[in-house]
Amino acid sequence: MTDSSTNMRLKLPLICFILEIILIILFGVLVQYDHDTDARDFHNKSHHDYENDFYYRYPSFQDVHVMIFIGFGFLMTFLQRYGFSSVGFNFLIAAFALQWATLMQGFFHGMHGGKIHIGVESMINADFCTGSVLISFGAVLGKTSPVQLLVMALFEVTLFAVNEFILLSLLGTRDAGGSMTIHTFGAYFGLMVTRILYRPNLDKSKHKNCSVYHSDLFAMIGTIYLWMFWPSFNSAVTAHGDDQHRTALNTYYSLAACTLSTYAMSALTAHDGKLDMVHIQNAALAGGVAAGTAGEMMLTPFGSMIVGFLAGIISVLGYKYLSPVLEDKLKIQDTCGVHNLHGMPGVLGAVVGAVTASLATREVYGAPTLAAWFEACLHTVVGFVTRTSTVSFILKLPVFGAPPDTICFEDSIYWEMPGEEAHHDELSTVRTAEMEKLNS
Amino acid sequence: MTDSSTNMRLKLPLICFILEIILIILFGVLVQYDHDTDARDFHNKSHHDYENDFYYRYPSFQDVHVMIFIGFGFLMTFLQRYGFSSVGFNFLIAAFALQWATLMQGFFHGMHGGKIHIGVESMINADFCTGSVLISFGAVLGKTSPVQLLVMALFEVTLFAVNEFILLSLLGTRDAGGSMTIHTFGAYFGLMVTRILYRPNLDKSKHKNCSVYHSDLFAMIGTIYLWMFWPSFNSAVTAHGDDQHRTALNTYYSLAACTLSTYAMSALTAHDGKLDMVHIQNAALAGGVAAGTAGEMMLTPFGSMIVGFLAGIISVLGYKYLSPVLEDKLKIQDTCGVHNLHGMPGVLGAVVGAVTASLATREVYGAPTLAAWFEACLHTVVGFVTRTSTVSFILKLPVFGAPPDTICFEDSIYWEMPGEEAHHDELSTVRTAEMEKLNS
Amino acid sequence: MTDSSTNMRLKLPLICFILEIILIILFGVLVQYDHDTDARDFHNKSHHDYENDFYYRYPSFQDVHVMIFIGFGFLMTFLQRYGFSSVGFNFLIAAFALQWATLMQGFFHGMHGGKIHIGVESMINADFCTGSVLISFGAVLGKTSPVQLLVMALFEVTLFAVNEFILLSLLGTRDAGGSMTIHTFGAYFGLMVTRILYRPNLDKSKHKNCSVYHSDLFAMIGTIYLWMFWPSFNSAVTAHGDDQHRTALNTYYSLAACTLSTYAMSALTAHDGKLDMVHIQNAALAGGVAAGTAGEMMLTPFGSMIVGFLAGIISVLGYKYLSPVLEDKLKIQDTCGVHNLHGMPGVLGAVVGAVTASLATREVYGAPTLAAWFEACLHTVVGFVTRTSTVSFILKLPVFGAPPDTICFEDSIYWEMPGEEAHHDELSTVRTAEMEKLNS
Repeated sequence: MTDSSTNMRLKLPLICFILEIILIILFGVLVQYDHDTDARDFHNKSHHDYENDFYYRYPSFQDVHVMIFIGFGFLMTFLQRYGFSSVGFNFLIAAFALQWATLMQGFFHGMHGGKIHIGVESMINADFCTGSVLISFGAVLGKTSPVQLLVMALFEVTLFAVNEFILLSLLGTRDAGGSMTIHTFGAYFGLMVTRILYRPNLDKSKHKNCSVYHSDLFAMIGTIYLWMFWPSFNSAVTAHGDDQHRTALNTYYSLAACTLSTYAMSALTAHDGKLDMVHIQNAALAGGVAAGTAGEMMLTPFGSMIVGFLAGIISVLGYKYLSPVLEDKLKIQDTCGVHNLHGMPGVLGAVVGAVTASLATREVYGAPTLAAWFEACLHTVVGFVTRTSTVSFILKLPVFGAPPDTICFEDSIYWEMPGEEAHHDELSTVRTAEMEKLNS
Repeated sequence: MTDSSTNMRLKLPLICFILEIILIILFGVLVQYDHDTDARDFHNKSHHDYENDFYYRYPSFQDVHVMIFIGFGFLMTFLQRYGFSSVGFNFLIAAFALQWATLMQGFFHGMHGGKIHIGVESMINADFCTGSVLISFGAVLGKTSPVQLLVMALFEVTLFAVNEFILLSLLGTRDAGGSMTIHTFGAYFGLMVTRILYRPNLDKSKHKNCSVYHSDLFAMIGTIYLWMFWPSFNSAVTAHGDDQHRTALNTYYSLAACTLSTYAMSALTAHDGKLDMVHIQNAALAGGVAAGTAGEMMLTPFGSMIVGFLAGIISVLGYKYLSPVLEDKLKIQDTCGVHNLHGMPGVLGAVVGAVTASLATREVYGAPTLAAWFEACLHTVVGFVTRTSTVSFILKLPVFGAPPDTICFEDSIYWEMPGEEAHHDELSTVRTAEMEKLNS
Repeated sequence: MTDSSTNMRLKLPLICFILEIILIILFGVLVQYDHDTDARDFHNKSHHDYENDFYYRYPSFQDVHVMIFIGFGFLMTFLQRYGFSSVGFNFLIAAFALQWATLMQGFFHGMHGGKIHIGVESMINADFCTGSVLISFGAVLGKTSPVQLLVMALFEVTLFAVNEFILLSLLGTRDAGGSMTIHTFGAYFGLMVTRILYRPNLDKSKHKNCSVYHSDLFAMIGTIYLWMFWPSFNSAVTAHGDDQHRTALNTYYSLAACTLSTYAMSALTAHDGKLDMVHIQNAALAGGVAAGTAGEMMLTPFGSMIVGFLAGIISVLGYKYLSPVLEDKLKIQDTCGVHNLHGMPGVLGAVVGAVTASLATREVYGAPTLAAWFEACLHTVVGFVTRTSTVSFILKLPVFGAPPDTICFEDSIYWEMPGEEAHHDELSTVRTAEMEKLNS
């Protein structure tokens, strides 16, 4: 079932060992505990224990961590025979990306005397950057080898850190929940990669590119976890006190409103007035994405609900009408529809953030003018296209072991498969017995 | 498979859009950030960041949130072909109910100068009220359309807020974990609704009203999450400090004791000495319900364990002996057996709370006398029956699109269904081949 | 399908009721709220609410709680027809063990004036001790009755408390994440029990001792939760402030590095270059075990990654090459391979802890010399073998209702089983129709 190019016996160990050994060496040379993590440092300044950043952020960190590993991992198990790869490759590339992100983000944002200082906030940021890679993974889901995914993660994390540096440090925008830095970036990066890896004969694997009953239920585990913990995601790195509080609250109401508009639009657009699991699993989350930038501001619950309400509508319409066009006309095969969940709602979030910030006084947020925001967006797009295209072509190298068009969306090419279920054996026993009876 | 009345193409979008737009308008007019959530307000009073209520309650809130969306959602996936509806309708009505509850509870408890002030505590209370609606959903599971459920939620949240106001504000009872306000109310509301929606011909869908192997495992995800996070549920809105601490601890031991008595009673009463998944999935949680009122008091671990121990016994006996009687004699078709999990243990919790409070001095808890408690209960029951009956009759309107008796407990009436699993195709290929061989 | 000895109608209720009643009585006599949990005590000392230990530890406690009930419970659902027992018996013995552990650990560590004082820290420790029992459960999975498991838990918790007392109190070692006290102890206890319960004819149930597609996905839920929350596990009882912070961070990087080496080794050693789910589900967690002792020290992220990297390699090699030898030569039938996940990585963790502590000055950690550590280990081994063997022989008594060799790894012996899935009925209807056509 596998030809030699998709055989992972040497390729995967080689890249894993090389990457991990480089990571370990760089951590040894560059990385140090930050002030709140270092035994001597924290005690010397004689702080109270409860002022340690750990108590402000660790619960949020764990919620984000669940979103990255359970949320994204299980959301992608909707394919009927791609559950091992969805959860398993998600696990592998996330474990790599969070280490590499620590270094890249530290290099751009956190150098102190030649050393990268780390603690719970850098852990959250590393998880955020990882989230961006997993969004891109959604676009290429089912069509890539684990080696390709690791290479993609290597480049994407690097570009993520560059992009984040330009937006947050150079242009001074604010984006605590990452509408722009995480969602828009991750979505368009993934779309660019899947465009360049375009497979004209992908319909040979078409019968595998759909869900079955239990795979949709597993995917709902991912959906619900992402939905529940999105308030923690958006508030995880906002300022202590009322900022974290307000961001969580705004996101909570944005998501609730988004869920109602998602159900409404799903019934309205789907065949025969029935609800479509694809919409529920994805579009109901768009409210979290869209509240990513403005969530920390004085958006009010009222404003948050409007944003979420619109995000749900846009997202369902995207799944229904835009995705087929992207595939047919632009040759963008977006397996999970990340454009509808992260792309468009991310852009919506950026616009809402720009408007909200420009309505407030400069003192309140230290935010740039509306013009600066659009400059930021423009910059992102141009630089982004150039850089991503270069990266994506590397992924086409046959040495990375991509699956052939006929065996996409299929675990068995990279995983040892267990036997079928016992009751099938029983079934076949029954059938054989019947056959024998007939023959006699 | 669907006739026109169950077609949701217009009904569901209509009700979702109307409800959400009303919610948004009311939020715009009435709702404001509270002191700990507002940027200016919190900083003006120059508090320390760590005194923000967010850090006292947000981790508990997230645990409660998981109980509402994963706990209740997956607990109800035990039915073989109702997983989409269980998780999906749970998701929809919860997303609506938490917004509506914010307004209703705010109207009765949280008005400040004509505005409803919200923050993490109101979010927890909104989730609590939502929990009550989901308990009632359990009673009517499989027999209602999403439109009916939204209408039910609309009325139930309103009555919940009235009932809560009477119990907590007028009668001055204490019920942090909601034995009375959440569990008893939700259970008897649901039973009343299912009684009025009685279906004499429900046995036509009988073969769907049972579990299969994997659906029981999905349900266990719900059970275990409810069990684990119940200490957070009961302690989420108790006073800061030792109160939260003590409530969590009491609930932890109550649940542990309840689990042992549940397994014991299940083996003792079930057929052939084998354990029954229905008991494990439900009765093991009764200890959390029963510790809801007294959990915050000086109940002691010893007292908590006795309460949990009794709750498990009562609950299993209810499933085994009382539920069939309720169905046959009183025509109450209680799909999930909420009477056994929330009804009786809730009443037990109320009694334990009354006794514990009356044993303590009035100074310690500011609690009412035993007589006042029973007056509270009595009041609840009488007012409750009158109000609920009225509501329930509305739900019988055919316009709401309830499923016919022959297609209850079945996802396909409201959901687009995925294909069957691939190995079935293989199976049928094999079968066809065999047939051909036989024919030749 | 069951003979009288495996019938649980009387045995299980009897042992559950007796154990729970003894627990309740002992709690009544011996257990009290600690300073931070008691209403009068906490307020008398006029602390600030935010200094209550609840806020330092409760989020970590809940993460540990999820690892115990979801993590361990679902990790063991990989067997095709043992999901009810994996989750269900895990639930039962954990609920018992945490109560018994409260008493045993309190007796050895927490007596104040003849009373055991409890609060959130004792709850975490009780969960830790429970974890040890669940590790042993992994070794005997599929081959024991619930009654045997309760008896095993009764003895194991007792010996755990003794062992912990010797290591932590008498020898003065430090082991916050329990590399030695939890993982090494739990693994070797389990191996000893499974050795003494050796079944020469276990291959009669061989066809049930493997996974199916969806059971492997359920198991991944367990794996991912254990992986995500291990930083909370290792940091849950370390000192407030930088210690908790640092331990979580070290564990995070150890696990990430371990995941990469696990995937590498799995592809390198498994058949045909394909990844093996058994390795991913288990070995990727070894980094958490191995960082259990040294995680709280100034191990640095660099050191943590080296430890995790090695742990993943050792663990996969153990699954591939050592487990078959243990079964064939030493007659140790280790169902979940706990030796590879908890045994060897636990020993590695103990060695790393000893080395790290001896490199630091005595002042920093108050740690014993390297020699003392090895004395500790030696002591553990000798005392351990003697005590465990005695216990294990008791478990062989036929009265405990172990399953026969032919019905191991099978839920139906202790659980009422639901019917098969509906589509099977449809299938058989189709088949029958075809048969009839053929016959006519």
